[in-house]
Amino acid sequence: MYVGADYYPEHWPRERWSVYAKWMKKAGFNAVRMAEFAWVFMEPEEGRFDFSWLDEALATLRKRGISAVLGTPTAVMPAWVAEKYPETLAMEAGGRRAVWGVRKNNCFSSGAYRLLSERITRAMALHFRSVPNVIGWQTDNEFGAPPCFCPTCRADFQDWLRRRYGGLDELNRAWGAHFWGHRVRAWSEIRIPPDQSTFNPGQCLDFQRFFTFQNVRFQRDQVRILREVCPKHFVTHNFMGFVPDLNYFDLAEDLDFVSWDNYPIHGEPGMLYDAAGAGDLMRGLKRRNYWVMEMSAGPAGWGAFGRNPRPGEMRLVALQQVAHGADGLIWFRWRTCTAGREQYWHGLLGHDGRPLRRYREAARTARDFKKLEKLLAGTTVKADVAILYDYDSLWATRIQPSFQGNDYQAGLRRYQQALMRAGVNVDLVSTAAGLGGYRLVIAPQLYVLPDAIALKLDAYVRTGGVLLADLRTGVKDESGLCHERTLPGLLSKCLGIEIREYEAIPESTPIAGWLPAAGRALHAIQYADWVIPKTAEKLAGYSGWHLAPYAAVTRNAHGRGVGYYVGTVARESQFYDELIANVIKTARVRPALKPPPGVEVSVRSGRGRKLLFLMNESEQAKTLPVPAGKLEVLSGRKTLAKLTLPRFGVAVIQIR
Amino acid sequence: MYVGADYYPEHWPRERWSVYAKWMKKAGFNAVRMAEFAWVFMEPEEGRFDFSWLDEALATLRKRGISAVLGTPTAVMPAWVAEKYPETLAMEAGGRRAVWGVRKNNCFSSGAYRLLSERITRAMALHFRSVPNVIGWQTDNEFGAPPCFCPTCRADFQDWLRRRYGGLDELNRAWGAHFWGHRVRAWSEIRIPPDQSTFNPGQCLDFQRFFTFQNVRFQRDQVRILREVCPKHFVTHNFMGFVPDLNYFDLAEDLDFVSWDNYPIHGEPGMLYDAAGAGDLMRGLKRRNYWVMEMSAGPAGWGAFGRNPRPGEMRLVALQQVAHGADGLIWFRWRTCTAGREQYWHGLLGHDGRPLRRYREAARTARDFKKLEKLLAGTTVKADVAILYDYDSLWATRIQPSFQGNDYQAGLRRYQQALMRAGVNVDLVSTAAGLGGYRLVIAPQLYVLPDAIALKLDAYVRTGGVLLADLRTGVKDESGLCHERTLPGLLSKCLGIEIREYEAIPESTPIAGWLPAAGRALHAIQYADWVIPKTAEKLAGYSGWHLAPYAAVTRNAHGRGVGYYVGTVARESQFYDELIANVIKTARVRPALKPPPGVEVSVRSGRGRKLLFLMNESEQAKTLPVPAGKLEVLSGRKTLAKLTLPRFGVAVIQIR
Amino acid sequence: MYVGADYYPEHWPRERWSVYAKWMKKAGFNAVRMAEFAWVFMEPEEGRFDFSWLDEALATLRKRGISAVLGTPTAVMPAWVAEKYPETLAMEAGGRRAVWGVRKNNCFSSGAYRLLSERITRAMALHFRSVPNVIGWQTDNEFGAPPCFCPTCRADFQDWLRRRYGGLDELNRAWGAHFWGHRVRAWSEIRIPPDQSTFNPGQCLDFQRFFTFQNVRFQRDQVRILREVCPKHFVTHNFMGFVPDLNYFDLAEDLDFVSWDNYPIHGEPGMLYDAAGAGDLMRGLKRRNYWVMEMSAGPAGWGAFGRNPRPGEMRLVALQQVAHGADGLIWFRWRTCTAGREQYWHGLLGHDGRPLRRYREAARTARDFKKLEKLLAGTTVKADVAILYDYDSLWATRIQPSFQGNDYQAGLRRYQQALMRAGVNVDLVSTAAGLGGYRLVIAPQLYVLPDAIALKLDAYVRTGGVLLADLRTGVKDESGLCHERTLPGLLSKCLGIEIREYEAIPESTPIAGWLPAAGRALHAIQYADWVIPKTAEKLAGYSGWHLAPYAAVTRNAHGRGVGYYVGTVARESQFYDELIANVIKTARVRPALKPPPGVEVSVRSGRGRKLLFLMNESEQAKTLPVPAGKLEVLSGRKTLAKLTLPRFGVAVIQIR
Repeated sequence: MYVGADYYPEHWPRERWSVYAKWMKKAGFNAVRMAEFAWVFMEPEEGRFDFSWLDEALATLRKRGISAVLGTPTAVMPAWVAEKYPETLAMEAGGRRAVWGVRKNNCFSSGAYRLLSERITRAMALHFRSVPNVIGWQTDNEFGAPPCFCPTCRADFQDWLRRRYGGLDELNRAWGAHFWGHRVRAWSEIRIPPDQSTFNPGQCLDFQRFFTFQNVRFQRDQVRILREVCPKHFVTHNFMGFVPDLNYFDLAEDLDFVSWDNYPIHGEPGMLYDAAGAGDLMRGLKRRNYWVMEMSAGPAGWGAFGRNPRPGEMRLVALQQVAHGADGLIWFRWRTCTAGREQYWHGLLGHDGRPLRRYREAARTARDFKKLEKLLAGTTVKADVAILYDYDSLWATRIQPSFQGNDYQAGLRRYQQALMRAGVNVDLVSTAAGLGGYRLVIAPQLYVLPDAIALKLDAYVRTGGVLLADLRTGVKDESGLCHERTLPGLLSKCLGIEIREYEAIPESTPIAGWLPAAGRALHAIQYADWVIPKTAEKLAGYSGWHLAPYAAVTRNAHGRGVGYYVGTVARESQFYDELIANVIKTARVRPALKPPPGVEVSVRSGRGRKLLFLMNESEQAKTLPVPAGKLEVLSGRKTLAKLTLPRFGVAVIQIR
Repeated sequence: MYVGADYYPEHWPRERWSVYAKWMKKAGFNAVRMAEFAWVFMEPEEGRFDFSWLDEALATLRKRGISAVLGTPTAVMPAWVAEKYPETLAMEAGGRRAVWGVRKNNCFSSGAYRLLSERITRAMALHFRSVPNVIGWQTDNEFGAPPCFCPTCRADFQDWLRRRYGGLDELNRAWGAHFWGHRVRAWSEIRIPPDQSTFNPGQCLDFQRFFTFQNVRFQRDQVRILREVCPKHFVTHNFMGFVPDLNYFDLAEDLDFVSWDNYPIHGEPGMLYDAAGAGDLMRGLKRRNYWVMEMSAGPAGWGAFGRNPRPGEMRLVALQQVAHGADGLIWFRWRTCTAGREQYWHGLLGHDGRPLRRYREAARTARDFKKLEKLLAGTTVKADVAILYDYDSLWATRIQPSFQGNDYQAGLRRYQQALMRAGVNVDLVSTAAGLGGYRLVIAPQLYVLPDAIALKLDAYVRTGGVLLADLRTGVKDESGLCHERTLPGLLSKCLGIEIREYEAIPESTPIAGWLPAAGRALHAIQYADWVIPKTAEKLAGYSGWHLAPYAAVTRNAHGRGVGYYVGTVARESQFYDELIANVIKTARVRPALKPPPGVEVSVRSGRGRKLLFLMNESEQAKTLPVPAGKLEVLSGRKTLAKLTLPRFGVAVIQIR
Repeated sequence: MYVGADYYPEHWPRERWSVYAKWMKKAGFNAVRMAEFAWVFMEPEEGRFDFSWLDEALATLRKRGISAVLGTPTAVMPAWVAEKYPETLAMEAGGRRAVWGVRKNNCFSSGAYRLLSERITRAMALHFRSVPNVIGWQTDNEFGAPPCFCPTCRADFQDWLRRRYGGLDELNRAWGAHFWGHRVRAWSEIRIPPDQSTFNPGQCLDFQRFFTFQNVRFQRDQVRILREVCPKHFVTHNFMGFVPDLNYFDLAEDLDFVSWDNYPIHGEPGMLYDAAGAGDLMRGLKRRNYWVMEMSAGPAGWGAFGRNPRPGEMRLVALQQVAHGADGLIWFRWRTCTAGREQYWHGLLGHDGRPLRRYREAARTARDFKKLEKLLAGTTVKADVAILYDYDSLWATRIQPSFQGNDYQAGLRRYQQALMRAGVNVDLVSTAAGLGGYRLVIAPQLYVLPDAIALKLDAYVRTGGVLLADLRTGVKDESGLCHERTLPGLLSKCLGIEIREYEAIPESTPIAGWLPAAGRALHAIQYADWVIPKTAEKLAGYSGWHLAPYAAVTRNAHGRGVGYYVGTVARESQFYDELIANVIKTARVRPALKPPPGVEVSVRSGRGRKLLFLMNESEQAKTLPVPAGKLEVLSGRKTLAKLTLPRFGVAVIQIR
């Protein structure tokens, strides 16, 4: 396992470098990430390279046994790039070029920028390929800048469409350009949609795909060079969890493994649900373990920072990621920068540069990692449940949410969080993933549903799988046109229902006939399909005269499996707890342990070992029953039948 | 009566056309609107016309006895127009040209666009003038796009001002350009105000008038051609009810009758008040009956749709319009489009193209129309009460609302809704209208009050009329300058009051001394005139030390009539109910029937007939006393002394 | 003392001029301000001057003994300037030039505009230097327009930086350009930051300073001419109280005295706290008395106006300013303009031009001034308490507020208002001011703390002063870099504490261990330093497990003085009342009189006299104990032991 910090030697006087390396070593660190914003220090003027400072920094670290991941530095262009090649600056929808002076502001279609990127990448690769403590590369930094609307991007978008569609007839058909008489007769007539709320939804969806293509191509240019020059190094990229602007599955394809930047300490409730879910998605991108390349190490924010990690909290959120499949963990950042826009993105050391509490907690966590390292080798999370995560549906829902308040990820979280509360591990995978190994597949709002996927899901159920689908499933085809089938289209048989009408519901409506949840009523909000069960059983319905004839939740035996459908949004999370309890029972999914509220459970297994992570994410001590007589790895003690976790406490029990 | 749907044959395969014509016929439809977005299909490249597809579609309809209104297609420019004549794209205030790809984005001063508009209009007119089932034309679509700020529009604005004012001295005087030293010395120095909150109010008001002028001129170019080529066809336009950006009285002048687009089903309460008021305004634009050219037929919205019409609701809202003077009703749209930005503007048929519940309810409504058709011939709404609707005051109030939260239309609605609750029909007419036939004239916030109108109102009261005026009346002259008279200026005698001071009131203040409304206090909010009654009687005042000396409501006998004044805004609608009860008693206005809450009443009369419409707009059954022994037209039964209307139920009683 | 109105003769027919002069005289007025928006009337075309109208207006006033302050008219450019020199129009960050037609829209770096400004200033100065009733000048109007982003300003900013830093290395160091690799290698690479939330904080802070420089330079160009041509006239400028965009200390330097524009009547609570504090700041800018150049005379607002001054209120708010050091008071405006964007910025006379209630209240106030005039001569406010007011800290806090909801001025108000409630006068002075005369110095959020200021404060305490500092003090150096010292840096000894960590707190936390405020708990919100007392005493702490070890308020004996520190924000104003009571006791500061809630106290003294102002700012009568047997100047009566002030009542007691 790798553990360490994001480190910017160029921010500090050279006399500190050896001190910092010593302190890192003392903390048990073995890795840093460096250089991803240091282009101007490596290429101070065009074509003149200077790596001497970084050589020295690397050498200082090497003496302490610390390895380095280097970032290609293309997320911040030097001033001379902007001055010499103004066309490399991205253009806003309104026509203004970005003003140089921030970061992530380049045009990804600019030939000049792509060439400059290749040159600095090649120069770095050639220089560092044989530096012994360089172990790998991070491409750029947090891909996903705002898109560029310049003429070059427009021409590039037109080219991409030409390659995608072949002919204009195909494009006009795919975009449904008969609507509003928007047929185009030349590729040059096509525009980048300046907003996603008034332009053609198919055009908007394709632009989102093109935007991914631009980023993937830009990364691939770099990866190709890194593979060629540094075949022994790994290549990764720091993703941003649930940030939705790029198709991360595509971006992950060219990498050895995925990394991500995790900032779960901001004072908002529910962030650890998201950190867990994002970890599951990161693991799902390549279906293998991942790194955390940036990790909360203090109050964070550009103008206003949030709360400080409380005693014990840094360790908790770090071990949570290990529990979800992290094999590397890098805190952001070593020392809080005293300059620039991230002065308040606090690191392990403060502005004063002293190794205080946060440093000590990181060191304690690194010691825990050391204890876990051998047991974790070869293990990962093996889930019985998959949630399908689909960027096309996400984007199309953003373009047309269907009803006020709808959000693809919020829809997904309802199930993901209920599963977490139930103690069940989950994989977040793409619709292209094989489903054979899963007992239960949850497919929230598969709004864009190509026929092939629908048929695959039907087959999955027929052959014994349990599927949970919900509202807005199957509305659109891959090009963003609405299917001409009565909903849920090709899933009608599998789900055993027909939906002839549907509507947004401005007020809440009590849910009727099921889920007699101890006294308090559950409520449908936002949306209701007018679901008519055909072969399905109605599990819940509605009060209120006009929705009374319809089902809110259905269950349908189909072949050897079962298809569930949820046609509304419930206000109360308890609805989803009851639903998940019902569904996992049907699917014969059993949690390793049903945790009390505030405690998270996750299991890593492999090579015959099974490690149960128990994480108290609350600020009160929690006592829970656990398998007795097993090794609790962090304390080195044997378990009794009950275990008490202090606030933010973590236990890792080797149950096999 | 015409009844049917907005129909886009260009969206569907030809083999569906005859099926759809058959289904329309079966539903009792006799009309469609077509082609208003089909420019690119009729003129696929500049100067080459192709009407064959529309000929075929019309022929298919003709076989089923269905007539068509054709739209001139200028609300969406084809891609080739934008590409060849980029100056036809409107310019935003910030200087950016619209990006082609939506609709309603042309410059109305562009010579090129005006010529292109004339050419396609003439080509259509020549082609379709002798197609037997073409009965009329709709100009463009929903005039009222955002204004254009291009240099051509600026020059056009300068020209328009030159024609309006003759000389710069007159313009400088009218705009009060002595303020802030803003005198201009050349027409070319004049700018289009890029916002209405910091620029000269007179300039803003004139730009609003110019914007109407641009639209009227554009429409007139088309109307001239249509009149010349197709003298037997009617010409109409689909207005947007209370949308306030254009002076609809001016735009209506060139038309045979007015149509409008009515979407009263969105889940918001009070929409049927607005649908009624908008119907009254549409009827008032030309003081004759109108059509609904687009009518809610399902959940509607671009990104997020609203609620579905509930069983019976489509019929209710259609008959409400008939009750207010509609003689034609076209549902939007026949079949829900599977493509483009309006995929979720649902039609009678869904995406699946099946004739289901909404189709059946439309068919039932069409049958009701059939029952009413003969009786309604030659009838309209004949009101004893007029509300003056004044675009100058509306715009000037938008430019300077006077107090936080003030809105011209909201001010008008307070009275309009109270009249509706009282069961009283009303006309919404312009200040130019003759008032002789009205017992009561309500003039909400006649903020811009030319002397001639003030004198007309005074004469109206002197000769026996009852006038209700309120706050901010008479503040400004026609050019937007404040009158130098103590308020209410030329109406002071008529109203018998003097207003030396006034103010916004940040908190609410109890209303004192009148309206002992069963226990609960009424409150003045937002604004208070410091009204000193001269000859008037004080009907209500204020609590609170500093407002105690002043009147909130006054009543003044003037000649043979009475002038009421309301100097504040009341928080409670009950205030307006009490007020209207008082005022209509004075004016000897008697409702046909005082309806229970949730039930609307309207009367159409003419040719010796009188039809009482009773509409239950609530979702509970309502029982009310009605004239006994009369024909209830929809059921064909005789009335008893009481009538029970089911939820959304409608009765039409022939009381004469 | 000068008293009068802002007067625009160019708005009214000449026949009104003598009437208005007569009415002014009758009201006891002796001064007007004129001409600050009249450029186009004085220079109707370039280089042709016409002052005849203003000569006549001045002559008419002179006959009634009324003096005039003339404004240089550069806050509104004539249309011909914009037309002939379009580069004089300011450019928005997005690149759009301002559209001519409002005011305050010029580029302050434009050579053309600066030359035009000098020419009109010189022409006015030469013309009016010997007009007997012209007594002084106001430069421009309310400096502080939005900044300009044009290429000329950019080059000017680069020049200013070159002068400030000398070399690029110094600039790169000061801006911490190593962060994100933002080193620049040529001055031309530097940009104006288009926003202050994503660009380098040092760059943003310097741009704010440059923006002050531009305004100061522009004013200095005018002042130089006025001093040269009119050596006997005073020169002032109308500042805007707490408006934060310019460093008012710099702008005040070239003036004889400061004026400001005071609009305390808008219906918001707490405006009189601000009017008092702003008066104290205006007095502090040059540490001498000031004028109010514009003063609320009616409901005010551009689009929506606020409430009307209630009977007696105009007098109260005028005398409040006198109590804080005003020696001149000019109501805005004489007569409400009937034209332009300020039609609803009401004056003493309404649109109808009649001298009614507001005129009469102004006249009464002028009579009160007359009674006070001789006694006030040579007096000012002499405070024992100083609050440091620091534009660098204010701006840096705006650029990076540190925590949500933080605002420099809000932080200052908490102490300023508590002092007001305690009856204690205060000076608002710059950090450069000598502190010797003060018993207590309050330094709210001295976020930017150069070492010299820290050492000065330390010395102040060591030699016997009492200092109250609080959160975020000492975070940054003058260039916006974070100090590398553990907080509070150089003040650590003086305050006797160490702050190793800190955080934003999203929820409230009860304050523990001090301030047993009669039953109800006090709460820390928004932010908490983790304060470790070293030599200091812990006066208050926190509940809640993770903050429990730390202090919220500390008190430290240091040398002969005491340093207090407040490490959080309290939700309840009572916290600040208790704190101030504690601190002023330590500092031996005694209020002249502890007023009851709603009553303000201020003392003016000098030449052996001491005048106690008592102002009832509530709408209920208030009775309070006062020194008996003294002269109450306004009534001319001797005081008893108790005095009752009616609502809005004011008493001025000569206590020495």
